[in-house]
Amino acid sequence: MSKKAEKEAHVILAGSEQNKDLLYATRFFAPDPFPFFQIGWRKYIIASDLEIGRARSEAKVQSVLPMSKYAKRLKKRTGKPAGMADILIEALKEKGVTRARVPHDFPVFVADRMRRNGIRIKAVMPPFWPDRVIKNEDEIDAVREAARLTAEAIHLGIDQLRKSRPRAGKLYLNGKALTSESVRFVVDSALMERGLEGRHTIVAGGEQACDPHDRGSGPLRAGWPVIFDVFPCHTSSGYHADITRTVVRGKPSAKVKEMWEAVKEAQQLGCDRLKAGINAKEVHTAIKDVFKNRGFETGEANGKMHGFFHGTGHGVGLDVHEPPRIGGVDETMKEGMIVTVEPGLYYPGIGGIRIEDDVVIRRDHAENLVAIEKFFEVN
Amino acid sequence: MSKKAEKEAHVILAGSEQNKDLLYATRFFAPDPFPFFQIGWRKYIIASDLEIGRARSEAKVQSVLPMSKYAKRLKKRTGKPAGMADILIEALKEKGVTRARVPHDFPVFVADRMRRNGIRIKAVMPPFWPDRVIKNEDEIDAVREAARLTAEAIHLGIDQLRKSRPRAGKLYLNGKALTSESVRFVVDSALMERGLEGRHTIVAGGEQACDPHDRGSGPLRAGWPVIFDVFPCHTSSGYHADITRTVVRGKPSAKVKEMWEAVKEAQQLGCDRLKAGINAKEVHTAIKDVFKNRGFETGEANGKMHGFFHGTGHGVGLDVHEPPRIGGVDETMKEGMIVTVEPGLYYPGIGGIRIEDDVVIRRDHAENLVAIEKFFEVN
Repeated sequence: MSKKAEKEAHVILAGSEQNKDLLYATRFFAPDPFPFFQIGWRKYIIASDLEIGRARSEAKVQSVLPMSKYAKRLKKRTGKPAGMADILIEALKEKGVTRARVPHDFPVFVADRMRRNGIRIKAVMPPFWPDRVIKNEDEIDAVREAARLTAEAIHLGIDQLRKSRPRAGKLYLNGKALTSESVRFVVDSALMERGLEGRHTIVAGGEQACDPHDRGSGPLRAGWPVIFDVFPCHTSSGYHADITRTVVRGKPSAKVKEMWEAVKEAQQLGCDRLKAGINAKEVHTAIKDVFKNRGFETGEANGKMHGFFHGTGHGVGLDVHEPPRIGGVDETMKEGMIVTVEPGLYYPGIGGIRIEDDVVIRRDHAENLVAIEKFFEVN
Repeated sequence: MSKKAEKEAHVILAGSEQNKDLLYATRFFAPDPFPFFQIGWRKYIIASDLEIGRARSEAKVQSVLPMSKYAKRLKKRTGKPAGMADILIEALKEKGVTRARVPHDFPVFVADRMRRNGIRIKAVMPPFWPDRVIKNEDEIDAVREAARLTAEAIHLGIDQLRKSRPRAGKLYLNGKALTSESVRFVVDSALMERGLEGRHTIVAGGEQACDPHDRGSGPLRAGWPVIFDVFPCHTSSGYHADITRTVVRGKPSAKVKEMWEAVKEAQQLGCDRLKAGINAKEVHTAIKDVFKNRGFETGEANGKMHGFFHGTGHGVGLDVHEPPRIGGVDETMKEGMIVTVEPGLYYPGIGGIRIEDDVVIRRDHAENLVAIEKFFEVN
């Protein structure tokens, strides 16, 4: 067969709440898996009877094919009820598809069945849609709006600390000990009230804040830096914000104050340096230099890392973590990328500080989408 | 090679927040993907430096292998950084594994790489762990506790209707129109306060309630049946409850009252009939007969289904929908299964009614895990 007879499709079979490449391609929110394919610029989805009306009015695709049509045809031909893989394959064969580009985590069962039906499979390592890294102004507005609402929720959380009273080192509000859990509840329910879904919201103080993955638990103490790292999805648009602020109620130690000043300077430098054309690695190195020059070492002791030991940032959009990375790897910044800038310092026995904004890369600067001022002491 | 030299493993590579078969096998909560395999009764996970401490103390497995050990070995051998698929394959080869049973939706990219390394792949259609359908008393207690807390949240939602005042057909509370959104917020934040995560909570009245997938939106009206279908995950255990109640504020029509009586009778019959050894299909048929005998027809008109057109129930556990099904298929009930019993009636132009409890199948009865009484009018 000549090469000309080959017809290639991009194929995804997933739920668009889980698979953001599918949401990106279709703009159709559906929790249950459905088949999608694209041949050239033409996009198709196959929808069940339950979803076909909504799919036709909401999905940004050229064709919505009825699942029942293929199910009936297959039932007639084979005498057996057809599964979603069979229906997808039937539609691909109808369109003459001989090769499929699928996400790296495409279900092996479906891939193998496609192969048995003569369709070659190419598993694509991320990014599946390289263009997704560049956001258009609608997407930028969606992140800006998510950031605005997330900032409101963070403010309400910080207010809990501000209104609390220290007693014997612990913080109390309305007669109850203030805890990571109680403050997180205030933040998460403020998000919910605004149509955002917060998962794994971090409100962590003291030793817990030294582990960037610790969500925080138990009583919050006076003089402790408390990290708020909040990264919800705005459910109406599907876009995320990812914002971190660190505050202290009561008197922080001189060391902790110095740490905060260093992180603030480093984070501002990151925001100031980023722009189209720059190598993100340079910015990451410049931030590390700020810490080094101020005498904040990075290293390991007793099996725990200390100092600044994570990346400077990452892309944010339909996923809360997506390309590009801002860290120790070469990565040229491009107009329309949205990235976080989130340096931090962590010293077991002292505390953790992190500050994070979301910025959009413009031709000659980075536009900050987060409009919260940066303050540390809330006394 | 003789058959004796074959060594088979069950293999999963996923995050345990997404893949509940992995959570079931390990009882280890992790949002980021990690490799798991089981050879005979012996379970292994491979953990990153960041997670290894928590994995060793929390995961219910025999061995926690350090990811860094395999990464270093591979880097030394190949000169390139190793991905998670390479690390999994290295560990499987070290243990002499030649065949892998993987979930049907195992990533094709990893499966293909395993094959190139001489490991045969068998994609298993669900259920991956057949035993998961039978719950032990700890699991039953986990669902009972999730149901208790979910019931509290539903009560608070119903209270919103009870406290509201009808005016020109609409319901008002504290001077504001009561909406699906405002009531859902009360339910979802009550869940959050109790450590449960509610997703897609349904508070739907009137015409919307006739589509069992509609979450509900806009003002709620007097005399409308309003469906509360709440199915959150209790985050500390990972187990779900799934409860539905339908109530009305103001005077319902005679027809709607009859519908409610029919659904209540049918649902009670389902709870009364279920026990170990019975065929679930019989129970589903008996429920359909209740509706038929009371004159409630099931059919289609103008492209919309009406009457009772969904299954009677489904298993509930780490997933909100899991095997077995209670519907038009043969399925023998076994001791320790937890299933929903949720008949409903839906008539466009009139309204929708559904009542749902979670029951555990015992030797000679079904034990109801939901302790909310069933009432309709909340005046």
